[in-house]
Amino acid sequence: MEVMNFLNEITLRHPDAISFGPGRPYEGFFETGSIAAYLDAWTRHLTEDLGRTPDQVRTSLFQYGRTNGQIHELIARTLRNDENIETDPAAVVVTVGCQEAMLITLRALFAGPSDVLLVTDPVYVGIAGAARLLGIETVPVAEDGNGISPDALLAAVRAVRAAGKRPRALYTIPDFSNPSGASLPLERRHELLRIAEDEDLLVLEDNPYGFFTRTGTIRPTLKALDTRGRVIHLGSFAKTCFPGARVGYVIADQTVTGPDGRRTLLADELSKIKSMVTVNTPTLSQALIGGMLLTHDCRLREANKQAVDFYRTNLDVLLASLDEHFPPAVRDRTGIHWNTPDGGFFLTLTLPFPADDALLRLSASEHGVIWTPMRYFHTDHAGDNRLRLSCSYLSPDDIREGVRRLAALVERRTAP
Amino acid sequence: MEVMNFLNEITLRHPDAISFGPGRPYEGFFETGSIAAYLDAWTRHLTEDLGRTPDQVRTSLFQYGRTNGQIHELIARTLRNDENIETDPAAVVVTVGCQEAMLITLRALFAGPSDVLLVTDPVYVGIAGAARLLGIETVPVAEDGNGISPDALLAAVRAVRAAGKRPRALYTIPDFSNPSGASLPLERRHELLRIAEDEDLLVLEDNPYGFFTRTGTIRPTLKALDTRGRVIHLGSFAKTCFPGARVGYVIADQTVTGPDGRRTLLADELSKIKSMVTVNTPTLSQALIGGMLLTHDCRLREANKQAVDFYRTNLDVLLASLDEHFPPAVRDRTGIHWNTPDGGFFLTLTLPFPADDALLRLSASEHGVIWTPMRYFHTDHAGDNRLRLSCSYLSPDDIREGVRRLAALVERRTAP
Repeated sequence: MEVMNFLNEITLRHPDAISFGPGRPYEGFFETGSIAAYLDAWTRHLTEDLGRTPDQVRTSLFQYGRTNGQIHELIARTLRNDENIETDPAAVVVTVGCQEAMLITLRALFAGPSDVLLVTDPVYVGIAGAARLLGIETVPVAEDGNGISPDALLAAVRAVRAAGKRPRALYTIPDFSNPSGASLPLERRHELLRIAEDEDLLVLEDNPYGFFTRTGTIRPTLKALDTRGRVIHLGSFAKTCFPGARVGYVIADQTVTGPDGRRTLLADELSKIKSMVTVNTPTLSQALIGGMLLTHDCRLREANKQAVDFYRTNLDVLLASLDEHFPPAVRDRTGIHWNTPDGGFFLTLTLPFPADDALLRLSASEHGVIWTPMRYFHTDHAGDNRLRLSCSYLSPDDIREGVRRLAALVERRTAP
Repeated sequence: MEVMNFLNEITLRHPDAISFGPGRPYEGFFETGSIAAYLDAWTRHLTEDLGRTPDQVRTSLFQYGRTNGQIHELIARTLRNDENIETDPAAVVVTVGCQEAMLITLRALFAGPSDVLLVTDPVYVGIAGAARLLGIETVPVAEDGNGISPDALLAAVRAVRAAGKRPRALYTIPDFSNPSGASLPLERRHELLRIAEDEDLLVLEDNPYGFFTRTGTIRPTLKALDTRGRVIHLGSFAKTCFPGARVGYVIADQTVTGPDGRRTLLADELSKIKSMVTVNTPTLSQALIGGMLLTHDCRLREANKQAVDFYRTNLDVLLASLDEHFPPAVRDRTGIHWNTPDGGFFLTLTLPFPADDALLRLSASEHGVIWTPMRYFHTDHAGDNRLRLSCSYLSPDDIREGVRRLAALVERRTAP
């Protein structure tokens, strides 16, 4: 994404800096040798469970395939086990990462120039990029410490309507959001669904980090709470399996009227659009993710226990290091503060001065520490004193040293 | 794609019909066991040729990767060997099939509503779909038996200009086109490039079938002939390796001015767009295609010798069967005729009555033979007496029997 170029340049120019930039998953759990085992689990499933012949297995691996994917049944089973989401496998669209899921969903839902997408502010760059690519107007809805407030959402909906436009959908990451780290409390989830129903709004729920609770709290997804068909659930295996496969999905179980006047599943409309974007999701990617799901009995939450522990430790270490290097006296003097996310990869640190590209350059070159300016996550790139710290990709020791360096940068700018 | 739904429905309803519909590659050359070997060839390349550590290999297989891909050097080498195309690997963008290549290229090039894409008529549904997804206007340029004529192209360019619009680019498949089977003679290639230069037009050259010559004639690609930076070359490994990998590419070596005013390679602009569509091309797909390229010393034309023979035989059998079942007397009586492609997967058969959905339904249900109405390949779905016959996916025996059935259908409708 455009705004990330400066960050990438800085990162390339300072390879020895500790970077709180990337939201990449930790690599220590990946095993090159597992590829053959997952592929084998998938092909055994095809032959033993589904009764496919060797020629049919070969076709499913090498040939063009079903537009909406081959592992939709396994994904539906996994969502039932892990999230209490009941879904018809026909409503699952397997996509090339969650990015394609967002793109095709927006393309299907947004019919004209008066349709507006509401997004959390700050917002994930992927959805902002997909909307920009399609020329869809986005309207930011400010988050507080608990995500989007019902009042802010209602005010945004009314402002959009007053401008003669239609608020078509809201995009949100309810659990451990990227970039803010905020989570929606249960009560707000119910209120948000009520507003969606009252205001005829769809909710695009993105859930890449939901497993990675720090405090043990697990909240139901909006999709699991949704009784009125208001939620389109976007999923990703990038953090719970591995990113290189580029496998994501949409649960699109709404009934819609197609261009030919027939009633169909939204998933079938998405299929037509997907055929113009990537035709199919690569077979080998699906085979590996399918093999992983089978290996773990379609229970990814359990399979991710070790990863959950790892990310919990990292976030705890980050929070403890911030406490240590920015003790109450410093906080009182400078106004520096941060949030305490219940989980996920990210937290938000607020400085008493602008966290801009100039500060990032100084931070990288003179203090050896890199982070992401929060202004990158505003659709209007408005000024902001906040920055995003990601702790998913670092070792605990690097996190401690990184915060020490960050404190030196702040000290330099705030020393009395 | 929308128009293909009826064809798909008919195919599902008549599973025993012989189908000249799909442009899928023949599956007999695929080997499930080869997956491990290709993966191994790729990882050996990373360690032995590029000196990567086991951890770096693991990262390249599992983690997010370079947006424009990992096998760009191998693709550049293969294009030099196979097509005499010299390109900087930095200008190669590896995509999720050629479909993503078309989508991101159109998104990069088409800036406003007055920009128009010229397309051959009949046109490949993939480019028409990508343009429709992005709201880009397409203007058809009729093909004759040798593809687009310079006169037709010039007339279309002028008509677009007269309407106050800008003809931004022309999309064409110069070799063994889908759907028509036509090929551009060498002289027309030179003229087309001259027009592109004179009229400030880009050419999107799509080349999925170029290896599959029937007559032995091999013509240089437009990209190989291009000395003025007019051609953006779109490539696919779907037919020369296998479709399930979903790996394609764009050669975008033009220098452009980015939104920030800096001069960059078009490939770098495509990268920003690709990051909003699929983020990266899946690593395993690249590993397998990379492994295949390495196994064949980056010479895919040679690696496809057996496939070239297979498709040549099939097209010869199709032509001979048409000759046999529609002898000169029948042709004279009915006006039925077809073209004689120099290669590829497709030919065009012209009937003395409309080749529409009603005829297709009759053909499938009463005669057990399926084909694609050519009207599916007009952007305005205009009426047409022609149909497309694809012979890539059938055995020679099925081709003979399919033509026999087709002759029975025609006989029923034309018997004196």
